[in-house]
Amino acid sequence: MKTIAVDAMGGDIGLDVTIPGAVAFLKQQADAHLILVGDAERIQAALSAAKAPLERIRIQHATQVVDMDEAPPSALKNKKDSSMRVAINQVKEGAAQAAVSAGNTGALMATARFVLKTIPGIDRPAIAKFLPAQGDHLTLMLDLGANVDCTSEQLFQFALMGNELVAALYPQRGAPKVGLLNVGTEDIKGTDTVKQTFALLQQSQLNFIGNVEGNAVFSGNVDVVVADGFTGNVVLKTIEGAVKFIGGVIKEEFKRSMLTKAAALLALPTLKNFKQRLDPRRFNGAIFLGLRGVVIKSHGGTDAEGFTYALQEAYHEIKMDSLHKIETGIARQLAAIESVSGLHDGNTD
Amino acid sequence: MKTIAVDAMGGDIGLDVTIPGAVAFLKQQADAHLILVGDAERIQAALSAAKAPLERIRIQHATQVVDMDEAPPSALKNKKDSSMRVAINQVKEGAAQAAVSAGNTGALMATARFVLKTIPGIDRPAIAKFLPAQGDHLTLMLDLGANVDCTSEQLFQFALMGNELVAALYPQRGAPKVGLLNVGTEDIKGTDTVKQTFALLQQSQLNFIGNVEGNAVFSGNVDVVVADGFTGNVVLKTIEGAVKFIGGVIKEEFKRSMLTKAAALLALPTLKNFKQRLDPRRFNGAIFLGLRGVVIKSHGGTDAEGFTYALQEAYHEIKMDSLHKIETGIARQLAAIESVSGLHDGNTD
Repeated sequence: MKTIAVDAMGGDIGLDVTIPGAVAFLKQQADAHLILVGDAERIQAALSAAKAPLERIRIQHATQVVDMDEAPPSALKNKKDSSMRVAINQVKEGAAQAAVSAGNTGALMATARFVLKTIPGIDRPAIAKFLPAQGDHLTLMLDLGANVDCTSEQLFQFALMGNELVAALYPQRGAPKVGLLNVGTEDIKGTDTVKQTFALLQQSQLNFIGNVEGNAVFSGNVDVVVADGFTGNVVLKTIEGAVKFIGGVIKEEFKRSMLTKAAALLALPTLKNFKQRLDPRRFNGAIFLGLRGVVIKSHGGTDAEGFTYALQEAYHEIKMDSLHKIETGIARQLAAIESVSGLHDGNTD
Repeated sequence: MKTIAVDAMGGDIGLDVTIPGAVAFLKQQADAHLILVGDAERIQAALSAAKAPLERIRIQHATQVVDMDEAPPSALKNKKDSSMRVAINQVKEGAAQAAVSAGNTGALMATARFVLKTIPGIDRPAIAKFLPAQGDHLTLMLDLGANVDCTSEQLFQFALMGNELVAALYPQRGAPKVGLLNVGTEDIKGTDTVKQTFALLQQSQLNFIGNVEGNAVFSGNVDVVVADGFTGNVVLKTIEGAVKFIGGVIKEEFKRSMLTKAAALLALPTLKNFKQRLDPRRFNGAIFLGLRGVVIKSHGGTDAEGFTYALQEAYHEIKMDSLHKIETGIARQLAAIESVSGLHDGNTD
């Protein structure tokens, strides 16, 4: 059974987004089940209005909600019966195979890490996301902000995790091409940490294609782009800003005169297709990687359609058994390294 | 007199780009003079073909050329009569007020730093660039790759330099709004170095607007975005990649069917305007900031039109007397800090 625990109260908007999103998702995936976690009475009311397939829904009551700006330690200590925490508990207890929340990112990461723990061999979880690239390719980038300071060991672990995730979700691609985000493609580029990571990746069994620059994310020629959480987060926000800005410039140009407005009318279906292809909602659903459970973070400000995509990401992971594959894959990779040099303990210098 | 020394041999293509670019530029700026540095005979031949305004051109012979992939120390040691080095010498000697090169970035920075030295109070020069933003605003971002590892003191100096440059070039904007590139807008975000930089900026006399995220570059609400050279370079390449990728998606959509092709025909002028507004050539010309002389780096692979924009950037700096303003502005800022706390020596902790 494919069951996802949903933090129904999380996000900027809460139930008005999560419930319609959940119902739309259930209509798309006939074998999916949901556990909706939060204020049972309000969830019940929202479901009645939405004509939900109730036979595939269970409501799990939770009395608290983590605030969007609440400090993670406070959420951990004072919100043990929050919709977020109880949703993750469902995964821990085996009642669900994934948890999805649009709530406070820091609190979600702290809670997920505390409740689920990390996979053996992984020091710190990372946030990963699939980004649109040429030829409708999807490029996984990580870390997107869970770790602003990273050692080369941690960056190497991000590569291992990203590699196993892509291999699990897109087996038809063969060995995922792993690139290290850097300021140039030459081997000698970058900070000391990045150079050390390069050496670790080169000695590994990964299909490491070397350093890649910021534009590689869109090239369609790389499957996993590895970065520290500071750089990764800035790149992600830059892409979001660029898409919005460039879309705005197109709009401005088509609104310039009567003539361009007439052209826009004829071009409308094309412009709509274009907009849809880069619609951030389609890429909603950041993956918390390295935990002993699947946890997906929806954008806090998304709408019901965007929330559906986050649920689809969780569904895809369950369907492809990604967690199990990541765990065994990483164990295999680390064993291979250990048998050669004990490299993953950091004694390479 | 406004005179620019041009490394005529630099770039992926060399004379076939630099000479037509130089001639086009002279036709745009009637009071500009150029010193074209390189193989005198070949420059002469290229000029004859291009109907150049010879009365505003002087040819300065140089026997060597720095290779595009030559290591900077090798260029410094073995290429003392390179077109690049001789062009920078013209600035040092006062024969020109700016130097422009499309050559090897690392060698250009090393040579410029060696020949011209840094401005008092500045430890290391940075690479800065104006990027397109909403409302045809131009956002200056630095560093773009000269310094992959930066201390908070250096990041603070980048802010000082960027602030003075924007104030000099765009006086109508008032005190430039300076933002610190970070993973969130809250004060407590980022690495230790970034947090320390935040404190330095907050105590300074700059118009510091706080932390900004990657999307802020496009917002039109910030004038100077400060980053270390690793992050800045990755962001710059990401933007270049995003523009190309999104442009490609539009093209694909308009080529999808007979109907969309017909729409494209009518929309052609609009699409052309759009393309032109984001044309990377229009933003060609990276500024080497912090040197005792104006040095502009053209993209190595640009064409004649793109090279013209790099010359325009140099011309703009000469016209606005940016170098003098930056030097006196930084001296004033540092004196103000010293009078309060001796802050710029780093004794803030």
